Amino acid sequence: MSAKAPVPGRLVIIGGAEDKDGEMAILRRIVELAGGTDGNIAVVATASGAPLDPALRYRSLFLDLGIGQASCLPISSRIQAYDPGVVERIRKSTGVFFTGGDQLRITSILGGTPVHKALLERRMEGALVAGTSAGASAMSDIMIVGGPEEEAPKKCTTKLAPGMGLLHDSVIDQHFAQRGRIGRLLSAIAQNPGITGIGIDEDTAIEVGPDLCFTVLGSQTVTVIDGRNIEITNASERAPDSPLALTDVTLHILPKGYGYDLKTGKPLAPKGD
Amino acid sequence: MSAKAPVPGRLVIIGGAEDKDGEMAILRRIVELAGGTDGNIAVVATASGAPLDPALRYRSLFLDLGIGQASCLPISSRIQAYDPGVVERIRKSTGVFFTGGDQLRITSILGGTPVHKALLERRMEGALVAGTSAGASAMSDIMIVGGPEEEAPKKCTTKLAPGMGLLHDSVIDQHFAQRGRIGRLLSAIAQNPGITGIGIDEDTAIEVGPDLCFTVLGSQTVTVIDGRNIEITNASERAPDSPLALTDVTLHILPKGYGYDLKTGKPLAPKGD
Repeated sequence: MSAKAPVPGRLVIIGGAEDKDGEMAILRRIVELAGGTDGNIAVVATASGAPLDPALRYRSLFLDLGIGQASCLPISSRIQAYDPGVVERIRKSTGVFFTGGDQLRITSILGGTPVHKALLERRMEGALVAGTSAGASAMSDIMIVGGPEEEAPKKCTTKLAPGMGLLHDSVIDQHFAQRGRIGRLLSAIAQNPGITGIGIDEDTAIEVGPDLCFTVLGSQTVTVIDGRNIEITNASERAPDSPLALTDVTLHILPKGYGYDLKTGKPLAPKGD
Repeated sequence: MSAKAPVPGRLVIIGGAEDKDGEMAILRRIVELAGGTDGNIAVVATASGAPLDPALRYRSLFLDLGIGQASCLPISSRIQAYDPGVVERIRKSTGVFFTGGDQLRITSILGGTPVHKALLERRMEGALVAGTSAGASAMSDIMIVGGPEEEAPKKCTTKLAPGMGLLHDSVIDQHFAQRGRIGRLLSAIAQNPGITGIGIDEDTAIEVGPDLCFTVLGSQTVTVIDGRNIEITNASERAPDSPLALTDVTLHILPKGYGYDLKTGKPLAPKGD
């Protein structure tokens, strides 16, 4: 018997406010990808200053949707993120779910700790990693911390910080259309057009496979901003905070079933079309 | 002495909420283009259900900024739009300014009347035509009447109506970033990607020359949506109101001094760069 190399687990990255009392298509898909009745989801509510309520709520939702086991991981400080008992629970999980709150709490508490390391390892061994809202933002190498909403794009006004490193060469934004965030995502992409901007609406998610193709789940849309063809930009000129110039940005609007190949930068029509 | 063919007048199309107590760069430019001390601006507040206040305010602003003459045209009904005295005042103007309000009031009251005809003729003879907010929307052949804001783009949810026909093959939207309107503009473009979408922010304007190139004025940005390269769309499928799919849209973000050639679909860097 020859051991197969493990396939990295999928990511489910949700734009926040996912359906929790209707069909729950996104949460249901998370339960399925985490192994269903054989699965074990660890809920991490580190993003929240009051983690107990959201942690218990998601645990209960995942159990209702048929996951074998679900538990709440108590990680509200860096000390807890070094606790071998907590690390062991990450190591036994088939899925890890990050709730919403403040993405800087996730990275500032977990970054570089044994829990973070265990998370990256479990993912490479095939475990699902999912997150909503702040838990979505924290997925990429570089994450948006904040920036102006419902405003014209400005230079250098979008605050960025290092994320959890589960998705490379991309920047995620969430609550995207609902909070008028295209300006801040464009401002982030202008600083390095080699990065793909992914704006995820509420009750909408991307499911990223090991081949770095993603498929859209949920009721709204995902906006992909591809800056590789940008010809004119004033991003590097003086005067931060002044209006941005940016030409020849490629934009894709993708609803449920549509997808995108992050390797080639090509949108994908629904299978069967 | 051979008579030269007249050059069509410029358009100044403002995204609403233009500066009225600072430098007033946009309104100042309108006064300049309308002929300054030799000019005569007719203010048309037809878009407003209570036209007197906005009409008098703009008249006073234009006079303060040095226009030779400015008058308020009383057109709140189709009967008034047939009044030879009102038509004569349009014919004597060097600039016509449309205030904000409801763009359907402009088109439903003026559409097809002698005032509308005189406006189109004066423009072809060289008069400036300017408008803000609803007065901006009404400029194009096809205008946006309304649609969802701060939402993912949906199919067929953006209401369109015939505009005043001063700008062809374009759809204007105003208060653009400030009201999260990119979804509704994308929805309009999806219905006919041959049309250029022009989203104008508050205190920002485009100045369209007779060569169909425009330059951006004001403090924020103009978003141009070019759909000619769209590859995948679900706009023509069933289920209106369902999320839109749209790939390979080209987007340009243009601040003051940048421009766009509506004939070729190419963005223009500031002159001197």
